[in-house]
Amino acid sequence: METASTRAAGSVGPVETRYVDLPEPVQLDCGRQLHPVRVAYETYGTLSPNRDNVILVCHALSGDAHAAGIARTPGQSARDGFAADDRDGTAGKALGWWDGMIGPGKAFDTDRFFVVSTNLLGGCRGTTGPSSIDPATGKPYGSNFPVITVADMVRTERAFLDVLGIERLAAVAGGSLGGMQALEWAILFPDQVDAVVAIASTHALHPQGVSWNAIAREAIMRDPAWQGGHYHGTGQTPDAGMGVARMVGHVTYLSAVAMSEKFGRRLQFSDDIRYTIDEPEFQVENYLRHQAASFVKRFDANTYLYTSRALTYFDLARQHGGGSLARAFDDISARTLLIAFSSDWLYPPSASRDIEDALHAAGKPVECHVIDAAYGHDCFLLEEARQTPIIRRFLAEDGTSA
Amino acid sequence: METASTRAAGSVGPVETRYVDLPEPVQLDCGRQLHPVRVAYETYGTLSPNRDNVILVCHALSGDAHAAGIARTPGQSARDGFAADDRDGTAGKALGWWDGMIGPGKAFDTDRFFVVSTNLLGGCRGTTGPSSIDPATGKPYGSNFPVITVADMVRTERAFLDVLGIERLAAVAGGSLGGMQALEWAILFPDQVDAVVAIASTHALHPQGVSWNAIAREAIMRDPAWQGGHYHGTGQTPDAGMGVARMVGHVTYLSAVAMSEKFGRRLQFSDDIRYTIDEPEFQVENYLRHQAASFVKRFDANTYLYTSRALTYFDLARQHGGGSLARAFDDISARTLLIAFSSDWLYPPSASRDIEDALHAAGKPVECHVIDAAYGHDCFLLEEARQTPIIRRFLAEDGTSA
Repeated sequence: METASTRAAGSVGPVETRYVDLPEPVQLDCGRQLHPVRVAYETYGTLSPNRDNVILVCHALSGDAHAAGIARTPGQSARDGFAADDRDGTAGKALGWWDGMIGPGKAFDTDRFFVVSTNLLGGCRGTTGPSSIDPATGKPYGSNFPVITVADMVRTERAFLDVLGIERLAAVAGGSLGGMQALEWAILFPDQVDAVVAIASTHALHPQGVSWNAIAREAIMRDPAWQGGHYHGTGQTPDAGMGVARMVGHVTYLSAVAMSEKFGRRLQFSDDIRYTIDEPEFQVENYLRHQAASFVKRFDANTYLYTSRALTYFDLARQHGGGSLARAFDDISARTLLIAFSSDWLYPPSASRDIEDALHAAGKPVECHVIDAAYGHDCFLLEEARQTPIIRRFLAEDGTSA
Repeated sequence: METASTRAAGSVGPVETRYVDLPEPVQLDCGRQLHPVRVAYETYGTLSPNRDNVILVCHALSGDAHAAGIARTPGQSARDGFAADDRDGTAGKALGWWDGMIGPGKAFDTDRFFVVSTNLLGGCRGTTGPSSIDPATGKPYGSNFPVITVADMVRTERAFLDVLGIERLAAVAGGSLGGMQALEWAILFPDQVDAVVAIASTHALHPQGVSWNAIAREAIMRDPAWQGGHYHGTGQTPDAGMGVARMVGHVTYLSAVAMSEKFGRRLQFSDDIRYTIDEPEFQVENYLRHQAASFVKRFDANTYLYTSRALTYFDLARQHGGGSLARAFDDISARTLLIAFSSDWLYPPSASRDIEDALHAAGKPVECHVIDAAYGHDCFLLEEARQTPIIRRFLAEDGTSA
């Protein structure tokens, strides 16, 4: 009998981000290797004696290792960047970006599971990335950082878990780019992953999504302050371009309906327009500026470029199936849970259906849920209540007692 | 009996853009007035003796007066910027941007109608705009140009037609921002407009569309080369920012389905990725760069800003109806034809349906057609064959003999 669901879900409480230095270089898809590599991580819950209750949670483009609980040293939280930020007044408390999903009695139940969250390879929140020191020069890598893939992120997570003495994963879970990592895990390490939870994700971004990412990168790289990627130590950072990139991202994460409901065409200051080119007139314009200003304070532009490039490269059929998605899944042993949201036009439900079909074709267990919800791609961060029972039930079906 | 439809539709042939200087200042919504004002225009067909066969065609954000035929002095055509450009190899011939719609036997049949096309107020293709000389300083206006509205564009077109001795319009027609002008005409000059043809247009852009326009403007204004709008004569223009703006626009003009069909995830150079951050890897990335590079050569950044601002301000209910769209239409006498496209998510069919409902409520004649087509907002430029019979029949119903 499951008891957690009968009491109120709680918080994992105060947490601290910790760091591990990997003992070996990470071998990258591009042919280069990376060393040293440090990984920032947090854990929630208790590791079982036989180490069989581990869930690895993977974050999306702008996230970090602080997935749940309250940061002991509050800084700007990844949660700031999400649509949730101005909704619940929690930004000041530095709540983790998936706090609604991870904790006692929550979707990823820390009464039962040992949840591990890392900052991804290439990140700027503690894990080695373009802003880290290149041992060859003693200066930040900048654009000398190797071009990385989602598979490289997963290999880094694998090596990190080795350091923690964790071999098997009860589940790998994530939304968006996090879901890509989860799927990649099941393919790269088929004997070590029992279950995949891929939310608002895809097997390969569609061309329009590739375009939005390309535009965001162009906005950064065309900013003269980017300086070919070597802006560290110059006193200038490409905040202008990254602000534009973030605005593009932000609109693609929401649905048109949600924007209409949230902002309408309400003016910023009065009942009438003020005839200005360079000041915000509509509330939605002001909101986008605010989001951009807040994001550039906490995020590194090169990390944005590298991570965006990795998620556009991601293409399971090309990488693992010789063009066939079903063949890419041939060797996995994990059960897969897919969740998509009806209004998500960046990672549309059709992409999850494609994965479901391919897994069926490969004879693998899969279930796919499309939740009817208005908030677009951001639903994976916002629609906690509706994802929770689906995920809890899926994770309870693994044959072990709850 | 209509005979034009029984023979092949033809071209209006070689055309030349001409210019008119308005005798009086144009009074603007912002309270300022503008003088001198020059208007660039073209005409196709023959003005009837009693001047009752005039159709004014209004262009969209990136268009110009060259709507049909072949420019005598070929330059970069507005058609370059549209999705059509690389489809039919016509860019070199400098075909007008709506050449498929204007000509003998075409939708706007020059065997019957005298079609007039102008570059809009604030433009950069011959009509007075931010790059024109400010008589107060002897230098280009730059951002000293007054902030204009769609109504100001229409007042300028009205004053221009006065110079030509044209009082009444058999129709005003346009797509997108051009359709906004057509609707504004029917409201501002209710006794002078017999019919409105508003294609892929709206009564007020929805918040997501407002956002895309805001992002495009931010990209331009954050480019240091913009220099607060006073880049003329400095040897620098904000090409980087305007390129990003154009890429954003371009993706919003197409549908995700059309992009998938046209580009898929095809790589630019080989069967595999090359691990590069700053070079295009996907064909769609290369396409967007090409579109941006081509656009910045022919377009003024400030014109983009002012025109984009005008089209986000446009809101018929706010301007003319005290918040009610039906009331905004109370005094019009024109018949209205609305055409929308199923895949147009920037100017969605729902906006045309809103207009239809409001016109019905106001007791005005209206018909609304939603064409099922894949090319998104660009359909108004591409789906000529499917718009033509609808428009020809609508224009034939005005009671005069064809």
